[in-house]
Amino acid sequence: MAVQSTAAAATQSATVSPESPGTSPSADAGYGTSFGPAAALSCRECGTRFPLSPIFACQECFGPLEVAYDLPLGDPDELRRRIEAGPASIWRYAPLLPVPADVAERPNLNPGWTKLIKADNLARELGVTGGLYVKDDSGNPTHSFKDRVVAIALEAARTFGLTTLSCSSTGNLAGAVGAAAARAGLRSCVFIPHDLESAKVVMAAVYGGELVAIEGSYDDVNRFCSELIGDPIGEGWGFVNVNLRPYYGEGSKTLAYEIAEQLGWRLPDNLVIPIASGSQLTKIDKGLKELIALGLVEDKPYRIYGAQAEGCSPVSAAFKAGHDVVRPVKPDTIAKSLAIGNPADGPYVLDITRRTGGTVEDVTDEQIVDAIALLARTEGVFAETAGGVTVGVLRKLIETGQLDPAAETVVLNTGDGLKTLDAVAGTGPTATIRPTLSAFREAGLA
Amino acid sequence: MAVQSTAAAATQSATVSPESPGTSPSADAGYGTSFGPAAALSCRECGTRFPLSPIFACQECFGPLEVAYDLPLGDPDELRRRIEAGPASIWRYAPLLPVPADVAERPNLNPGWTKLIKADNLARELGVTGGLYVKDDSGNPTHSFKDRVVAIALEAARTFGLTTLSCSSTGNLAGAVGAAAARAGLRSCVFIPHDLESAKVVMAAVYGGELVAIEGSYDDVNRFCSELIGDPIGEGWGFVNVNLRPYYGEGSKTLAYEIAEQLGWRLPDNLVIPIASGSQLTKIDKGLKELIALGLVEDKPYRIYGAQAEGCSPVSAAFKAGHDVVRPVKPDTIAKSLAIGNPADGPYVLDITRRTGGTVEDVTDEQIVDAIALLARTEGVFAETAGGVTVGVLRKLIETGQLDPAAETVVLNTGDGLKTLDAVAGTGPTATIRPTLSAFREAGLA
Ligand SMILES: [Zn+2]
Ligand SMILES: [Zn+2]
Repeated sequence: MAVQSTAAAATQSATVSPESPGTSPSADAGYGTSFGPAAALSCRECGTRFPLSPIFACQECFGPLEVAYDLPLGDPDELRRRIEAGPASIWRYAPLLPVPADVAERPNLNPGWTKLIKADNLARELGVTGGLYVKDDSGNPTHSFKDRVVAIALEAARTFGLTTLSCSSTGNLAGAVGAAAARAGLRSCVFIPHDLESAKVVMAAVYGGELVAIEGSYDDVNRFCSELIGDPIGEGWGFVNVNLRPYYGEGSKTLAYEIAEQLGWRLPDNLVIPIASGSQLTKIDKGLKELIALGLVEDKPYRIYGAQAEGCSPVSAAFKAGHDVVRPVKPDTIAKSLAIGNPADGPYVLDITRRTGGTVEDVTDEQIVDAIALLARTEGVFAETAGGVTVGVLRKLIETGQLDPAAETVVLNTGDGLKTLDAVAGTGPTATIRPTLSAFREAGLA
Repeated sequence: MAVQSTAAAATQSATVSPESPGTSPSADAGYGTSFGPAAALSCRECGTRFPLSPIFACQECFGPLEVAYDLPLGDPDELRRRIEAGPASIWRYAPLLPVPADVAERPNLNPGWTKLIKADNLARELGVTGGLYVKDDSGNPTHSFKDRVVAIALEAARTFGLTTLSCSSTGNLAGAVGAAAARAGLRSCVFIPHDLESAKVVMAAVYGGELVAIEGSYDDVNRFCSELIGDPIGEGWGFVNVNLRPYYGEGSKTLAYEIAEQLGWRLPDNLVIPIASGSQLTKIDKGLKELIALGLVEDKPYRIYGAQAEGCSPVSAAFKAGHDVVRPVKPDTIAKSLAIGNPADGPYVLDITRRTGGTVEDVTDEQIVDAIALLARTEGVFAETAGGVTVGVLRKLIETGQLDPAAETVVLNTGDGLKTLDAVAGTGPTATIRPTLSAFREAGLA
């Protein structure tokens, strides 16, 4: 029952409602077909629609805005073939994204179409019998899923004539914005907390844009960026995760599309997804619902599980307490890419995990490190701490009976171990020896 | 003329010569069709053939062995279609590699099919008008081209029943072997010089295999491994770059195949390729010749340029001095992945660069760092030091008139900047400020 209503809701949000004007708001705003099938921005709280523009909050109720579509409700077989004939990047899904049809021709990093790895060794260790897959987004150009969301925001920035690409970032996003702006020939200026992992700092700076370290937490950085955008200084700036957030968020849908296509156009039973702001989890759910509404996959139940680090687990705490709202926390965890103490989409995450029959769970820093090693040892995938969080949470979900090991599960790795080396700094040579056979024998290695 | 003879030579080496016995040596050795179209090992010096087995030196003349094929000389259009319908990995070229037909189904990292990036911004800065592409192998599973060669060696190891996967490594290879062995469920034991970049040490260890640091240079490590393989200790060991080297080397051919296919089944005018042992450069040339012999691309001249760091430039020195042999050096450069002072394939590199009308050039550590920044700033690609070497050499080749900027050029980036962070350690925030607009203004950023 839950599933049918889910699909019905998706059909509604995926098409322009009857009362929308004949001329699409995007055409009104003069942006023509620059946004492809996107028709308007729509308030997630009150449903009010706005023209496609660089705004992010509802002018009626201050609710968050998201992109609404005139999606192609034609022959699903034809759409599937069109997608399969597309490029090996997120642009194969251009017909379902707020981007122009020629998006792949414009200079960008062409992210996505990362590997969905059948993780039989990991499944054996965890006791998963229903099939286990790792969606490995470390394969993106700057080695995190952020390349997906930035690519969509970049297109919106170009369309709106914005000339500086910016963001508040826990690290991965800064590198993704810097790289995308460099390739597109835009100026960039990105903001990070001052205490990030050195690899992420270098990666945020190496593309030649401006990098500003903020004395404070990510939440301080975020507040500062909201201030900046309201100031004349911020004119012509596209903050990918602030004023371009409605577009940006849509990039995460491509994870849902890819997982379904890579499974042979069907949905898994369970998805384990990390929670930072919560946006990714909500957009993956949106993508799954669209796939059903478009007839690209069969309608079936799926459970979405959220994963947090114990040191920053406001959504997990709210889930367990049965609350609908999330109480902000001060983060303290090695999983810095998930260290958002005041997650904007927390309430939506609670709604989705409950509605689909999933849960939200958290793991300690020690469990994160163990899970990184487990994934590396079993599948040859070196995940960043966020990947340790999802794999660690998966293990905990199974051990505590929250996730059915006989069901088919996809766990996300959203970043690269090379960016969070400190987490596994203890890892090193088994032995250091002189280059002789006797030294090799003496070290007990023979 | 040179081109025609090149193609003729390729046709010869790509097919079993008339005097070879009717039964292929691989069948004799009992390995059946495990090696696909590969027919034998063939000495690069004297041409003597040996059954496909874990040997690497000619028993007649001690020359290096390479894989010889019964390549499918049928309809090129059909072969092209078959390749295009294949997986998004090197296994799309399985019909041209020494691997079983079902290779993609066996647990491995599925490397390859990395991006060929049209580098218009970089071209503009360098004055290249004929088209410039970066073949970006940082997109591989462990973020270097080594995943390609290891994947082929892994298949050979499985076929030969070897149970420990091993290598001597300047860093990238150790990680690639560790990851591949983990995924395949083999034991691994890899050897590195004791002074590698920390990211490479962690990556070599994180997959849970054994990692042995050797007090000495890469050349010492290499010598030690050759000793180990002759000792009873080494029984059942597959050293990917020693006793499995003939198979391993073939993985580099896939770079040639991918470049040609991604250009729309044609060859570029120039290729700029880094030189460590020199194996990669020689195998790319072999791959290009095979493409011509098979009719998959039109026969046309191409020039191969070799790139070294000044601090380890024995091949460049020999090229400039007009020598046919390479005099070993003691490496001293930040480009540690290229720091092989006694490059095994040096003489072949000299032959190929001269024959095709290319050259070998080298750049200083400072020029390497500048080139890393240049590539990042123009194309959003963060290369490791080896990528700084090729881009830096490309710049020098143009400035010195050695490479025609009106010709179409492909430059290789074979690794990832995250593994050689020390090279750009000076890169950091433009400013560190309190989270206020006034602080932002005071820092001169507004
Ligand atoms: Zn509203
Ligand atoms: Zn010989």
